[in-house]
Amino acid sequence: MPLNESANGVYVIAPTPFHPDGRIDEASIDHMTDFYLAAGVTGITVLGQMGEAPKLEHSEAVAIAARIIKRAGVPIVVGVTAPGFAAMRALTQDVMAASAAGVMIAPPNTLRTDDQIVTYYRQAVEAIGTDVPFVIQDYPLTFSVVMTPSVIARIVTENPSCVMLKHEDWPGLEKISALRRFESEGKMRHISILCGNGGLFLDFEMERGADGAMTGYCFPDMLVDVVRLSAQGQRDAAHDLFDAHLPLVRYEQQQGIGLAARKYVMMRRGIIASDAQRAPGGALSSTARGEVDYLLARLARVDQRANLTPALARAS
Amino acid sequence: MPLNESANGVYVIAPTPFHPDGRIDEASIDHMTDFYLAAGVTGITVLGQMGEAPKLEHSEAVAIAARIIKRAGVPIVVGVTAPGFAAMRALTQDVMAASAAGVMIAPPNTLRTDDQIVTYYRQAVEAIGTDVPFVIQDYPLTFSVVMTPSVIARIVTENPSCVMLKHEDWPGLEKISALRRFESEGKMRHISILCGNGGLFLDFEMERGADGAMTGYCFPDMLVDVVRLSAQGQRDAAHDLFDAHLPLVRYEQQQGIGLAARKYVMMRRGIIASDAQRAPGGALSSTARGEVDYLLARLARVDQRANLTPALARAS
Amino acid sequence: MPLNESANGVYVIAPTPFHPDGRIDEASIDHMTDFYLAAGVTGITVLGQMGEAPKLEHSEAVAIAARIIKRAGVPIVVGVTAPGFAAMRALTQDVMAASAAGVMIAPPNTLRTDDQIVTYYRQAVEAIGTDVPFVIQDYPLTFSVVMTPSVIARIVTENPSCVMLKHEDWPGLEKISALRRFESEGKMRHISILCGNGGLFLDFEMERGADGAMTGYCFPDMLVDVVRLSAQGQRDAAHDLFDAHLPLVRYEQQQGIGLAARKYVMMRRGIIASDAQRAPGGALSSTARGEVDYLLARLARVDQRANLTPALARAS
Amino acid sequence: MPLNESANGVYVIAPTPFHPDGRIDEASIDHMTDFYLAAGVTGITVLGQMGEAPKLEHSEAVAIAARIIKRAGVPIVVGVTAPGFAAMRALTQDVMAASAAGVMIAPPNTLRTDDQIVTYYRQAVEAIGTDVPFVIQDYPLTFSVVMTPSVIARIVTENPSCVMLKHEDWPGLEKISALRRFESEGKMRHISILCGNGGLFLDFEMERGADGAMTGYCFPDMLVDVVRLSAQGQRDAAHDLFDAHLPLVRYEQQQGIGLAARKYVMMRRGIIASDAQRAPGGALSSTARGEVDYLLARLARVDQRANLTPALARAS
Repeated sequence: MPLNESANGVYVIAPTPFHPDGRIDEASIDHMTDFYLAAGVTGITVLGQMGEAPKLEHSEAVAIAARIIKRAGVPIVVGVTAPGFAAMRALTQDVMAASAAGVMIAPPNTLRTDDQIVTYYRQAVEAIGTDVPFVIQDYPLTFSVVMTPSVIARIVTENPSCVMLKHEDWPGLEKISALRRFESEGKMRHISILCGNGGLFLDFEMERGADGAMTGYCFPDMLVDVVRLSAQGQRDAAHDLFDAHLPLVRYEQQQGIGLAARKYVMMRRGIIASDAQRAPGGALSSTARGEVDYLLARLARVDQRANLTPALARAS
Repeated sequence: MPLNESANGVYVIAPTPFHPDGRIDEASIDHMTDFYLAAGVTGITVLGQMGEAPKLEHSEAVAIAARIIKRAGVPIVVGVTAPGFAAMRALTQDVMAASAAGVMIAPPNTLRTDDQIVTYYRQAVEAIGTDVPFVIQDYPLTFSVVMTPSVIARIVTENPSCVMLKHEDWPGLEKISALRRFESEGKMRHISILCGNGGLFLDFEMERGADGAMTGYCFPDMLVDVVRLSAQGQRDAAHDLFDAHLPLVRYEQQQGIGLAARKYVMMRRGIIASDAQRAPGGALSSTARGEVDYLLARLARVDQRANLTPALARAS
Repeated sequence: MPLNESANGVYVIAPTPFHPDGRIDEASIDHMTDFYLAAGVTGITVLGQMGEAPKLEHSEAVAIAARIIKRAGVPIVVGVTAPGFAAMRALTQDVMAASAAGVMIAPPNTLRTDDQIVTYYRQAVEAIGTDVPFVIQDYPLTFSVVMTPSVIARIVTENPSCVMLKHEDWPGLEKISALRRFESEGKMRHISILCGNGGLFLDFEMERGADGAMTGYCFPDMLVDVVRLSAQGQRDAAHDLFDAHLPLVRYEQQQGIGLAARKYVMMRRGIIASDAQRAPGGALSSTARGEVDYLLARLARVDQRANLTPALARAS
Repeated sequence: MPLNESANGVYVIAPTPFHPDGRIDEASIDHMTDFYLAAGVTGITVLGQMGEAPKLEHSEAVAIAARIIKRAGVPIVVGVTAPGFAAMRALTQDVMAASAAGVMIAPPNTLRTDDQIVTYYRQAVEAIGTDVPFVIQDYPLTFSVVMTPSVIARIVTENPSCVMLKHEDWPGLEKISALRRFESEGKMRHISILCGNGGLFLDFEMERGADGAMTGYCFPDMLVDVVRLSAQGQRDAAHDLFDAHLPLVRYEQQQGIGLAARKYVMMRRGIIASDAQRAPGGALSSTARGEVDYLLARLARVDQRANLTPALARAS
């Protein structure tokens, strides 16, 4: 099922589970996949920024993607960002052959001008093939590349295979409004907009016209519910749920330790067996673990889903 | 009263109130100052990043600082960051002559190596004079300069006039712990650490050893209470209050529109007469204003201070 | 005489001469000005990157500009680049009142997108006044801001007071060709293009359509002759002269120590009394001085002007 | 023959020859290799910045390295810079198995602090194995990572397998002096220093203590002779030869088109069959080709090697 511009809901960003010794933990991959499906995600994104992709051999990366594709039965987007088009093409070919729904491409952090950005995506599409649906990842906080709405419109218009924006500009609410205005004015065809940025602005992003979320917050079930509530127009309920999680969403947003926090919670929730990262990787200090525990305890008081024990059961 | 390393509480970052036509609004300056004092701040920081300092003539900047110094009766820190040491020295001399408590200096965004950063602060101190207490502003998200704890320790040790760190690294919790560990191990003398970053991590920053906040969130009364509760060891109460404000704290954190949101709320609370920024300045879209209104309404349900009308009365 | 789009020849970038104790050396300013005129420059640019402008008080900066303006009798361009529009406007007003021909504005290094750059120049023109002729300084190596030819065309078209480009993109030969093509195709009105970048590509820049040089190489007499020879179509002669100086041009191009090398040669040539920089400033190591001496000795064998003793006489 | 700290002479940076249709041109690889050996290089570096490595499949990269290793009989250094340690390790293992002499590693452009840089090299060495000799590539103009001499000394001291610095800081003369001073003071063990930066400062770099060059200037025979003359103390002769080439060295230094100019000259000299770059690649405009032709004609008047026709004969 190829990715297209009607995609919506939650495409959860999957981490890569490892054993403490650095080996890939296939059992946890399966278990995590099942958990995601049970939580109601509509898609899964693998090998993204938070998937420790640079630590994976090419063959490992393809195997992980293929395993999740085979098990999940929902569209799988694969991050293929690479410093060279040869590596990007090779990974794209292998995962598309394994039935990925599409790929995601972030710009290299050396790009500056509008034309440089547009040219880069044109060249990337030439490299991977015009028949592969792709997602623009727009994340200036990490990549230092700033794309205006006009630049995004140019990329979308030039490349029919562009079907989605992973929106994580910050601040980015007005950007969503601008893109949707372009669409309503006929200046740009419709694309799907799923929001990243750890979900920190998901409440309002939905109200601005986003179709859902593409992020890996450790309670994807919350993301699913907020997206659903917001789409149903239940504004207060969506914000109530979102706000209950915001202290932890915010904590997980810390660059550098965010992945450690995320994996730690996923381990505590029984979604993966270990919070290990493959070397070189960060780890939470004991103080930080205590802080996350405290946030989980507070969350448990207001959100039944934070009842940590049954999560595993629910997923299986 | 010169700034020293025992400073604590909330040094609120003051915006500069303007009339809609761009003139400085002295009445609002006075009113805002009174509001801050009534809210319980222990100091005020003027001409910072959020004070629209680059739009002020030198004489205007000095006049604003002098006015607030004269009225407030609490220590006033003045931002003197400048691309050249001549301008930095000129402003420092004038505001210290007007009885400022100290100055704050951010590094230019061209610095890269540890030595470059340490050298810069040495040269800055030579420029402003070794008798002027100063604050290091450590804000990599905006300035692109990354200071390790060791670099900060070197600056503190080399420059006896360094008395405070405005901590806004992100993530920065471990940095506070590392600096306090340096102090307890005798590797660095004690300095005051006040936290910026819009207050987004203030709850845990206090628990890591910060002395308070230096930020301009539109409810400084919340900052005062969280700092106090945390210092008193009332952990749950501190977090409860903080979490109630977090959706708005987060909203105000958006770079580029944060100041517009902050001034808008301060206007709605009656603290300043207009949310105008001097040109060139941003403004909230009507959608954004509606989002802020919604957040205020939600806040009012959980926090009596968000009852917007009495705020003015309280300040006067 | 206001600067206009027909400017050509050499607008030499003047350093600021200091006494070893940091005081401004007015006698050397006069002497240097006379030397420049005798060398055949058609204009002078003061307070640029190499003029140590950030170390000058506002009143000093204005006094230096006024002194040179009064003495020179050729158009004087003043660098007014500043982090804030208030300082930019204040300096512009004071130097234009002192009969400067125009001002030069470089973009702040935080700009990224095409629109950000165009907007910045629009706001700058609003700040300084639409009646002040200005020069765009396009120097990505130093400012990290990349302007495409299209962006320059937009700035030129939007702002009738834009009369010149200080071209120092690198590589930049194709940019000159592109801009001249825009002009010939009627897509952009004509502007003067003077080349900086230390003169490293001046030989070919002239052949691509530049009108001259705006740089401060320590032998401005060479720049004058190369520009003249090239304009006269004496290609080989222009290159012969240029190539003889290229080893020293290249040496002076070293960021960080270029100004020290330049001032050292100007002192050795008797143009200024001291090569001192105001603190904080760099200085040549004795090894580096020896290298410059060696290059001067080699140059003296092929270019009579490099015979150092008569230079002073020639200037007076 | 593993690379060690006594390496000297010229390790030429080899481009990757392609057919106009993008296929790798093995015959030109062989011919180019023979030419380099005939020119007197002491080593060859493949898959560097100028080798179009990001456009090569992993298997292609390994095949090219293996082909040159087998034919050359001199030490071959392979660039293994990669965004992830998995790809870096995979390429290292394969080329070391094919008898490469060592590998070269540049830092990712996200590094800022001294500690980050030192940590990165420690992790890289853990990834590739402590038994693989490696070269630090220090090229801030391209990578935006600034390494002080102290940081280099820390990397050298921590990692016994570090045997060489590819020095292309700019300006960098004082850095070479500082590192050699560290060595003479016993603060750092001796390493080989070969200079890149297109050779723009090779004349003085040799005099500061460099052991040779590692760059790909289109006349490597000039590099060989300058290194030899300088090592023999024939200062004037070294500079005379260097200066004759400087206009072209300078032209080739233009980022973005430098490789096109280099391949064009190598094609004209008969070293490779085509100047094609694999897509996406730049190409010289006809004006630029004319400029290079003009520089070659001028060079031919002063340097017999620039007599372009016999170059091929000489190489075979």
